[in-house]
Amino acid sequence: MSPTKRTKIAVLGTGGGGRAHAAKLAELGHEVHVGTRDVDATLARTEPDMMGNVPYKEWLADHPGVTLLPFAEAAAAADRIVINGIDGHNAVAALTGIADALSGKVLVDYAVPYIYNPELEHPWPTPWGVMPKLDPCDSDSLGEQIQRALPGVRVVKSFVTQEQETVVDPKAVGGGDHTMFVAGEDADAKKAVTELLTAYGWSDVLDLGGIVSSRGMEMYAGMHSAIGFALGFGTPFGVKVVR
Amino acid sequence: MSPTKRTKIAVLGTGGGGRAHAAKLAELGHEVHVGTRDVDATLARTEPDMMGNVPYKEWLADHPGVTLLPFAEAAAAADRIVINGIDGHNAVAALTGIADALSGKVLVDYAVPYIYNPELEHPWPTPWGVMPKLDPCDSDSLGEQIQRALPGVRVVKSFVTQEQETVVDPKAVGGGDHTMFVAGEDADAKKAVTELLTAYGWSDVLDLGGIVSSRGMEMYAGMHSAIGFALGFGTPFGVKVVR
Repeated sequence: MSPTKRTKIAVLGTGGGGRAHAAKLAELGHEVHVGTRDVDATLARTEPDMMGNVPYKEWLADHPGVTLLPFAEAAAAADRIVINGIDGHNAVAALTGIADALSGKVLVDYAVPYIYNPELEHPWPTPWGVMPKLDPCDSDSLGEQIQRALPGVRVVKSFVTQEQETVVDPKAVGGGDHTMFVAGEDADAKKAVTELLTAYGWSDVLDLGGIVSSRGMEMYAGMHSAIGFALGFGTPFGVKVVR
Repeated sequence: MSPTKRTKIAVLGTGGGGRAHAAKLAELGHEVHVGTRDVDATLARTEPDMMGNVPYKEWLADHPGVTLLPFAEAAAAADRIVINGIDGHNAVAALTGIADALSGKVLVDYAVPYIYNPELEHPWPTPWGVMPKLDPCDSDSLGEQIQRALPGVRVVKSFVTQEQETVVDPKAVGGGDHTMFVAGEDADAKKAVTELLTAYGWSDVLDLGGIVSSRGMEMYAGMHSAIGFALGFGTPFGVKVVR
């Protein structure tokens, strides 16, 4: 149990990343509201998802501190922090649809805008061993798109430089001596996310400035993939800024 | 002095990065041939360059083990390894022009393809504090362009994830416990570059696979810039892959 104050936190999305955050936040004693597009559809699934995660209903039964709600209700239930775990190619539309519920809150975005191309055999995600492609890229970023679409929300880009399973458990990688990054326009929002990261076990959180730095954080996906391919499937890793 | 065998190595380009490599290679006892477009023009300059480096003639006088030659002659003089320190936006054209001299050799490329836009107040390089933009990006990279343009040359992308002053002196950053990367199609070429890096003082060199990984390495430029802005101008840093 953590010494942090018990708060209500929302996690949008029911994939592996969202599950990692929801489970950790519940373990830290927070009240966790997970958002999904269609609660009945999410609970009706009986097969593992495309990433091999067990059906959500099964996962939920193992995590009694977590409730499942429609996106807007989950976001509305949060005191302050909402974690966006919606796929990159759906994020702007889904978040814009619940702008009122998000208004004034801190939205932590960790999505990478991997291209979604329905003409490919694997429209999404990029298969193992293949260098991913991004859209937007270079002159814009998903973090900036979300902030522009939701001017009343304080967007913080973070968590994006490694797998979410080790974001919530940094000590599982090299004893925890590696670096997490935050970027965004609002200093108080970045402070709140840094406090959350501290509760997760992070000791080195580097503030990369404004939301424009989302570009670099998202474009790091190619290096992240290449390092992952080099180390081998499933090897946990992180990056330490040595200075 | 290094225990490595004395060889003839070429460094193409007279900027700060090329100077760092040339000086270090000479210090390690190698015979260093620096290539430039126009020897007379390079030696005629009496003002610092746009990055504030002293005129090359002055620098050369302080480095008696280094000779200055036209690009093709410098490349031809190398036994095996040629380091490409030509600006990203000029690299393909300049290297294609000396393809015969490079044939069969190992070309180490560390260039980032920062956009060069003559309509901007600062066409190149990107000013401090501004997120850089790249061309090519995402679906191609400069490393791949160079390899396609020069099929008879063994291109290794490396050195690109930090300032060249610390590439040649890794122990100046956190005692040297950080990671360097190599990518390319030829295992022997990557081995040769890894040996060079070992002579520079690197103990953690990670092979990122084929030249396609140049994309990730070049697109890391945004993170590198953002980290640099966060740490402050002139602060040396590197990244360690913690696993």
